Amino acid sequence: MEEWEEYEYKPKSVKEIFVEMKNTAEFMVDLAYSSVLFGEKELAEEVIELEEYLDMLNYHLMVHAVLAARSPKEAEQITSILHMAHSIDDISNAAADLAKMILEEVELHPIIKQVILESEEVIGRFIVTPDSILVGKTLEELKLASNTGVWILAVRRGKRWLFDPDGDFKILAGDVLIGRGTQTSIDYLKEIARGVIKVIGNE
Amino acid sequence: MEEWEEYEYKPKSVKEIFVEMKNTAEFMVDLAYSSVLFGEKELAEEVIELEEYLDMLNYHLMVHAVLAARSPKEAEQITSILHMAHSIDDISNAAADLAKMILEEVELHPIIKQVILESEEVIGRFIVTPDSILVGKTLEELKLASNTGVWILAVRRGKRWLFDPDGDFKILAGDVLIGRGTQTSIDYLKEIARGVIKVIGNE
Repeated sequence: MEEWEEYEYKPKSVKEIFVEMKNTAEFMVDLAYSSVLFGEKELAEEVIELEEYLDMLNYHLMVHAVLAARSPKEAEQITSILHMAHSIDDISNAAADLAKMILEEVELHPIIKQVILESEEVIGRFIVTPDSILVGKTLEELKLASNTGVWILAVRRGKRWLFDPDGDFKILAGDVLIGRGTQTSIDYLKEIARGVIKVIGNE
Repeated sequence: MEEWEEYEYKPKSVKEIFVEMKNTAEFMVDLAYSSVLFGEKELAEEVIELEEYLDMLNYHLMVHAVLAARSPKEAEQITSILHMAHSIDDISNAAADLAKMILEEVELHPIIKQVILESEEVIGRFIVTPDSILVGKTLEELKLASNTGVWILAVRRGKRWLFDPDGDFKILAGDVLIGRGTQTSIDYLKEIARGVIKVIGNE
């Protein structure tokens, strides 16, 4: 799901649709906080596009799920799927509401950025310098989430944004990464991106 | 905030209340998925208690925030705080709705657990064996979130649950940890908890 712009719905199993809904909603929350923190309209716009995408997934999930019910027991079980999908949809709507603050150019209270920076899960921005050991490596090779505790949400290369990069995404010098993690993890990856720390994880 | 049962509201700054709201809502989502995955009613009950706690925080935030407005510009900025607090509250309500599935003993479709296990952010349960290097160390010493990528949500010791453990929480043999991370991180910590892997992070 590298390029959301190119997204087209391809028939999938109920499970695949459902997993994608859950992943998308969680990603939307992180991206919404990132858009607020950095005042980046493009991140906010992506959240709104993802909301529409998730609504469509939800619709397909419901159609598939309702069709599958063949007995009262199955109907009750399938209701549990619709229940969870509804909660996921609520989360995605909350993320979209957050992103709308940026799109509607609401005057933000300075406290808002502090709250995002000081909560347990922090959003960080990492500028990759030519000296960094990240340069020329893929996310798969680096295993950033396991090795640093930072989850990469989006990458800006020049004027282009890439969202939710795959494992085969190769980092280049000058890339701006946006990621989510603990304060310690964020600080650690910042030093790696700056080229100050030259080892990563269990190397 | 180790023992939610003992929680009492102490006057705090708007920022502190707001940070606690954001942390609580995110924790509630993870805990709700954990309750669904493991069918643990106590985790679900905790989510419901946290929802009430968050409602109270939200009320205090609103009172503080509204009182602080002294000019139209401040009023607009403060509206942004209420806007974000509303989104956080929506997320916490979605988590509570998820947890209610467990409390209302809804018959769950088997796909639901698979979806939680197969999404990008996975919930894992770790039984700490006497051989594990985790035994006798605090979460602070271990820096689990940074070193393994797993965030500990709750710990069961015997029949007692501890939620959102602090850094000074010391792990004992027999503890059952519930944590959130990527599949790779979860697998890694499982081996550490089992005593198979004897080093952690950058040691």
